[in-house]
Amino acid sequence: MAGETTTGLDVYQDRITRLQTEMDRTGIDLTLVGPSSDFFYLTGYDAHQSERMTLLIVPRSGQPSVVVPVLEAPLVMDRQAIVDISAWTETEAPWERAVQLMELTNGGEGLTIAVSDRLWSIFLLHLQSHIPKAKWVSATPTMRPLRMHKDERERELLREVSRRTDEAWDEFVANDRITGLTERQAVALLVGRTAARGLVTHGGICASGPNSASPHHHTGDRVIQVGDSVVFDWGGTLEGYHSDVTRTVHIGPASDEYRTVYDTVSRANDAALAAVAPGVPCQDIDRAARDVITEAGYGDAFIHRVGHGLGLDVHEEPYMVGGNTLPLAPGMTFSDEPGIYLAGRFGVRIEDTVICVEGGGERINNARRDLIEMA
Amino acid sequence: MAGETTTGLDVYQDRITRLQTEMDRTGIDLTLVGPSSDFFYLTGYDAHQSERMTLLIVPRSGQPSVVVPVLEAPLVMDRQAIVDISAWTETEAPWERAVQLMELTNGGEGLTIAVSDRLWSIFLLHLQSHIPKAKWVSATPTMRPLRMHKDERERELLREVSRRTDEAWDEFVANDRITGLTERQAVALLVGRTAARGLVTHGGICASGPNSASPHHHTGDRVIQVGDSVVFDWGGTLEGYHSDVTRTVHIGPASDEYRTVYDTVSRANDAALAAVAPGVPCQDIDRAARDVITEAGYGDAFIHRVGHGLGLDVHEEPYMVGGNTLPLAPGMTFSDEPGIYLAGRFGVRIEDTVICVEGGGERINNARRDLIEMA
Repeated sequence: MAGETTTGLDVYQDRITRLQTEMDRTGIDLTLVGPSSDFFYLTGYDAHQSERMTLLIVPRSGQPSVVVPVLEAPLVMDRQAIVDISAWTETEAPWERAVQLMELTNGGEGLTIAVSDRLWSIFLLHLQSHIPKAKWVSATPTMRPLRMHKDERERELLREVSRRTDEAWDEFVANDRITGLTERQAVALLVGRTAARGLVTHGGICASGPNSASPHHHTGDRVIQVGDSVVFDWGGTLEGYHSDVTRTVHIGPASDEYRTVYDTVSRANDAALAAVAPGVPCQDIDRAARDVITEAGYGDAFIHRVGHGLGLDVHEEPYMVGGNTLPLAPGMTFSDEPGIYLAGRFGVRIEDTVICVEGGGERINNARRDLIEMA
Repeated sequence: MAGETTTGLDVYQDRITRLQTEMDRTGIDLTLVGPSSDFFYLTGYDAHQSERMTLLIVPRSGQPSVVVPVLEAPLVMDRQAIVDISAWTETEAPWERAVQLMELTNGGEGLTIAVSDRLWSIFLLHLQSHIPKAKWVSATPTMRPLRMHKDERERELLREVSRRTDEAWDEFVANDRITGLTERQAVALLVGRTAARGLVTHGGICASGPNSASPHHHTGDRVIQVGDSVVFDWGGTLEGYHSDVTRTVHIGPASDEYRTVYDTVSRANDAALAAVAPGVPCQDIDRAARDVITEAGYGDAFIHRVGHGLGLDVHEEPYMVGGNTLPLAPGMTFSDEPGIYLAGRFGVRIEDTVICVEGGGERINNARRDLIEMA
């Protein structure tokens, strides 16, 4: 996430107010947020995740507080118009300070406290032991309506980060030769071209040959060779917003079977996109892609959901997965990434980012998607 | 953390057994570990942290289980000699599967369950709601005795990762010119030289001019200029083990005041090292450095503890901080990093890694530590 933004504090004040409205509607008294994209979304401060507790405390009404280690306080002082800053020193117990700020009575009896997903358990356990009578719940239901619906500025950033990532791909396949390189070396070339466009990069997956059949393969030292399927799954961030793209190439001439699998995945990707429209349940997007793959006889080889939301997190709500009846709405942004994985042999995945807009689905990735036989 | 290690599974089986012994001694029935260095330490599997739950369940006796998303199961199947693998599919609730594996009766009544520090709260809240009667505690007290005492193999890795990081520094100050570069550009040169030695790097801090007075400054676009103090705090990992070094340079000729501050920090660093010996309380290491700085009149400007343990995490137990009476023991490895921060003006910090050995403290960083006036 970026430490600086081009917007002022108004956008964050507005988000905090909307969270408080949502808390009021759902009966949440306090929301506690650790360093995470939720924290950044609400304050614009890219809080440091460490054993030194930083905690945003949002009451149902009134100004939130940030409990921060004294040595990181200088980084957040410019947010005082929207949050009170409470800096703890090295020999203090920060959870005790946080509990004091909450001004609780009787061990929190009768209070419902929502906790953001990624707060470390060590902090939650300390807080729970100091507030034994409160009811503790997940903050996902209250944060989700805010985070899921991207505003115009967020959509612009998502389009731009995707556009630059696409450019990196097109340049990569036009210029680089990967036969004889290790997976690590090959993905470094692609990530380097992505970083060169001003995006912050965090590595990526390169899965070659039989490894391409493992969707979350740990990129390693296998040498890419003729006959391989090679899956690249990578991206970058721009002001904290993610791109997340997958393309699959073949090294040398592809077999008929490979062409069939590739074509099936490509058609499944198209089918999911075509199913996107406001009001459509998320699970129908998964179903649309899955039907294409099942009809082609590869249903058992598509072992993951077709997509995940993305924005400040690379995986976030909403999830395009069987069982999720949440209706799509304009501004929801998610991946469309069907795959076929033939264990021990090869895999193919094609992933784009899609924004749900009034008229349907807007695919914001346009990197080459035809079957490329790469050198 | 590295996905591969040079050791077999015996080392992990031994660590699991030692954890179980510690659980038995302290009355813990189950230990639950999310993706983290604790997970890697116990299994050698570099579990992926995401919204898809991965959980290691260690009972007080018998073989542990790993609950893992089906698409990541291929990555952990080679650990079946030491852990049972339970892969959940995309439409399941993984916490329900985890609870089933625990074979609880009566809502966990009478059980004490320890949770590793960095498990995401969303998973803990789900597990708590399914196991309402258990007592939930932090796993830190049981994991700490294992993680803190580095064995010979761990010490070798820590020495080697530190040695390579030192080489990068010496090469950097001998060859690079940073005046006119942004902080981001300058630290990229140093990190690049570190990565070139085969270490995995994760960025680093460059804090220049007045920014050098903010210990956890977010490296930015400020241009480095003559008269600046410039703090570099960076490192890398080797098979998951961290280096963590800080050096401070001056751009152009340094003032007498700057020389006094630099000399004070350097002497404080030496004093902390000299205080290290088995049996000495951690807080005495902090005190040794702090006394030097206080005597020089800068006590209020040393606003953080003098050190933190490091190993698989860049910050871990033990902490060299006031109030920590834990006695040092051979194998404990930690940073020695006093600093003086003059708000709005400049800061100086010098950081090395130290291993507590039988005879005292072994400083494993030997990067140039004299006052360098850099171009």
